[in-house]
Amino acid sequence: MMNFGIERLYLVNPCELDGECYSRSMHASSIVDNACTFSSFGEAISDLDLLVATSSIDTKSEKKHLRNPIFIQEFSKKIFDVNGNVGLLFGREDYGLLNDEIAACDLMVKIPTSDRYHSMNLSHAVGIILYQLYLEHTKLPLKRRGLDHTEKTHLYEAFRLLLDSIEYPLYKKEKTEVMFKRMISRSLPSKWEYHTLMGVIGTAAKNCNEKRNK
Amino acid sequence: MMNFGIERLYLVNPCELDGECYSRSMHASSIVDNACTFSSFGEAISDLDLLVATSSIDTKSEKKHLRNPIFIQEFSKKIFDVNGNVGLLFGREDYGLLNDEIAACDLMVKIPTSDRYHSMNLSHAVGIILYQLYLEHTKLPLKRRGLDHTEKTHLYEAFRLLLDSIEYPLYKKEKTEVMFKRMISRSLPSKWEYHTLMGVIGTAAKNCNEKRNK
Repeated sequence: MMNFGIERLYLVNPCELDGECYSRSMHASSIVDNACTFSSFGEAISDLDLLVATSSIDTKSEKKHLRNPIFIQEFSKKIFDVNGNVGLLFGREDYGLLNDEIAACDLMVKIPTSDRYHSMNLSHAVGIILYQLYLEHTKLPLKRRGLDHTEKTHLYEAFRLLLDSIEYPLYKKEKTEVMFKRMISRSLPSKWEYHTLMGVIGTAAKNCNEKRNK
Repeated sequence: MMNFGIERLYLVNPCELDGECYSRSMHASSIVDNACTFSSFGEAISDLDLLVATSSIDTKSEKKHLRNPIFIQEFSKKIFDVNGNVGLLFGREDYGLLNDEIAACDLMVKIPTSDRYHSMNLSHAVGIILYQLYLEHTKLPLKRRGLDHTEKTHLYEAFRLLLDSIEYPLYKKEKTEVMFKRMISRSLPSKWEYHTLMGVIGTAAKNCNEKRNK
């Protein structure tokens, strides 16, 4: 983390930060000192505006939105347009992230690897992703101010209500909601785009509801 | 190494390749099995045509060529033009490469790092350099196939009809259509996402129209 200028470490239910931990951190012990510890995943992500899952396991099917990733090069090109707290979420060394943790994320990113061996050691994955971000960040200035947590919640809720208003089939509703979330995250909308989209979706849902109730 | 499709490991005077070594190599134990062991540096490099030193310590002066590095991005673009055996030389975990080892190399490469902390853990440095080489020599599969012209035309038309159906104010209609186009382009939707979105927008517009005409 310190090699690539990243400072804020959040830990969820970590093991003890003991002498071995400090000795391995070498000259970056200040990061361990300043790490924030949380007892639950939900608590840890509450101040993060864009949450990014990392996983070596992607889906073979385009229809499964959950583990439909973008490569970190593409991600690292887009991410510095976001103004807000971005959280990179890394799973456990042994079994990575759970599906419901990945579903809670706005995006999933993946390191391109050889077909012979996809799964990476956790600390190598962290190192490579931070390296890739560092490369991009040394070039790119900040631009668009992305959506914050509240705005995204409203947007996804509005879309859900739109689906309700058109009596969207229940069996595919959740999938479509995740799809919408992924698409919005990839497009990194600006505030203005957000408000416009909210207007369109909200009005459409309202009209569809009025039609239904007649 | 196996994550990035690299197979040949040369070791100079290594420690014993014991159980811990195998257990840490996880599913890449074949690389340990096939590693070549040498008793001297000179012996190890005898079949290598281009020898590349890696170091976090570069020189402040351009005049001191010994540790005058190129960054690995530049290196990784050039290296695949070389026909022959390329050796990437990594030093000891504690004190890296000696000056005479670096002098024996054709090139020195360096990972760009934060000014606050240059020196990297050996295995992270290996991971990042192999990742960068892998990126250059692998054409990343385009996971998403993207929309063709016809699909995009239909999608934008469907969105236009949705705006009509909710009697969207004329003065901002064109702007909102452009916005939608931009967002879709940034999100690079898959075919399946396209069809799902068309379904949602089409049904919403239809319902809104039916409501209007009642």
